[in-house]
Amino acid sequence: MLAITFLGTGTSVGVPVILCGCPVCRSSDPRDQRYRSSIYVDTGDAAWVVDTGAEFRVQAIRAQLRRVDAVLYTHSHADHVMGFDDLRRFSVGNGDCMPVYAARETLSELQRIFYYAFSGEARFPGYVHPEARTINGPFQLGNTEIVPVRLEHGRAHVIGFVFRQESRPMVAYLSDCKRVFEPDLGLLDGVETLVLGTPCFKALPTHMSLAEGLAFAEFVRPRATWLTHLSHDFLHAEVEQELPANVRLAYDGLRLDLR
Amino acid sequence: MLAITFLGTGTSVGVPVILCGCPVCRSSDPRDQRYRSSIYVDTGDAAWVVDTGAEFRVQAIRAQLRRVDAVLYTHSHADHVMGFDDLRRFSVGNGDCMPVYAARETLSELQRIFYYAFSGEARFPGYVHPEARTINGPFQLGNTEIVPVRLEHGRAHVIGFVFRQESRPMVAYLSDCKRVFEPDLGLLDGVETLVLGTPCFKALPTHMSLAEGLAFAEFVRPRATWLTHLSHDFLHAEVEQELPANVRLAYDGLRLDLR
Repeated sequence: MLAITFLGTGTSVGVPVILCGCPVCRSSDPRDQRYRSSIYVDTGDAAWVVDTGAEFRVQAIRAQLRRVDAVLYTHSHADHVMGFDDLRRFSVGNGDCMPVYAARETLSELQRIFYYAFSGEARFPGYVHPEARTINGPFQLGNTEIVPVRLEHGRAHVIGFVFRQESRPMVAYLSDCKRVFEPDLGLLDGVETLVLGTPCFKALPTHMSLAEGLAFAEFVRPRATWLTHLSHDFLHAEVEQELPANVRLAYDGLRLDLR
Repeated sequence: MLAITFLGTGTSVGVPVILCGCPVCRSSDPRDQRYRSSIYVDTGDAAWVVDTGAEFRVQAIRAQLRRVDAVLYTHSHADHVMGFDDLRRFSVGNGDCMPVYAARETLSELQRIFYYAFSGEARFPGYVHPEARTINGPFQLGNTEIVPVRLEHGRAHVIGFVFRQESRPMVAYLSDCKRVFEPDLGLLDGVETLVLGTPCFKALPTHMSLAEGLAFAEFVRPRATWLTHLSHDFLHAEVEQELPANVRLAYDGLRLDLR
């Protein structure tokens, strides 16, 4: 069992975009309001978040999160990390410790930005007390094996994750990528649910466009594909109608119960 | 003319607090929901924000900000700076530049955390392009003179601001302080409106308690005092009844039109 709640499905600037008056930014459909991309994964025996953008507090409260055993980071761009400090309340619940899983480069950026937390300088009660855990390969959280997948995203060091239970690759979460680095492509073999970032209609050097994402989903052949990391290009109700039957737009608050 | 909009009136953890079920965190009174402390100041000829906590995007959209000519920082603690990246949309409007006013120590922390912006590494269109302006003494934004006031707040370097028009000290904004450093006390002489951070009922080493804040307001003798940087100690409707007549609790969205 693995339940995914989308805490956010937006790009770096979120939706609505500040100062923007486009139909998506003015839409009253809640599915058009997107906090920064982040998911919450609950497997019954463990629970973790992937990425903590600036609005993490609001997202955690909205999703009524009660338990966060660990945090995983895809990379250190501002829209994925700036809510780190708000892990503090979950850190207290975890015996005053929050395991932080990330690749070496991402951990070192986190340590630069939030040095007061990692250095132990702010050890007084109630602060977030992170425990850095470098991702070098697959690791385990409860009964789930978590497999990092190396992604190309400009010059940034980015990873995605495949969540496996009993050798079944249940989900791949690839939020920020132009492509999957060749040697890691095989890690997606047989993936049942693909969550893929496609921010725009237009091709960008750092991200897949919608068309590139659809082609990639064709290549991976999961049972279902959910698109995330969406900009104000996407009017939910309109774009959903034009997608293939097994491809859907994710939205903030969406929960997938995978068995 | 000087209009202040409270973008947020909360402490570092905001209200509601994650995982908290106290009456304030469960309150349906919108005045009990507090984003991180920040104000927007509009003088007609200039407009600026003081501090940009993690939720700045949400706060800016809620307040329907159209124009931000500059940002001022009181200090570099996480709850005051982590929304910095969301200034980008206002930066674009300012001829692709966002003047950032802060004391030397705070600027150097901002440059450490957001080095990609300050270093010019991320110069592509749409990113925030800050222009660091060190606060060494009073400076001018439009017709307003801004006077920094040095505050004691643990080991952090913190300043508050007095906003003066035609030599009238219209407002003092002191969000994070245990006390005002002696040599700067005179800068508060004749202040008409005092905005003061009093997070808790209990005395803390870094902040004034409510009782300490009330005593300080008695000492400064402004026409009106607005309390901000409030924790979930404060059930708005209840605490307001117990305050002296010229002391009020600020709340998110409150606008003061000062003339």
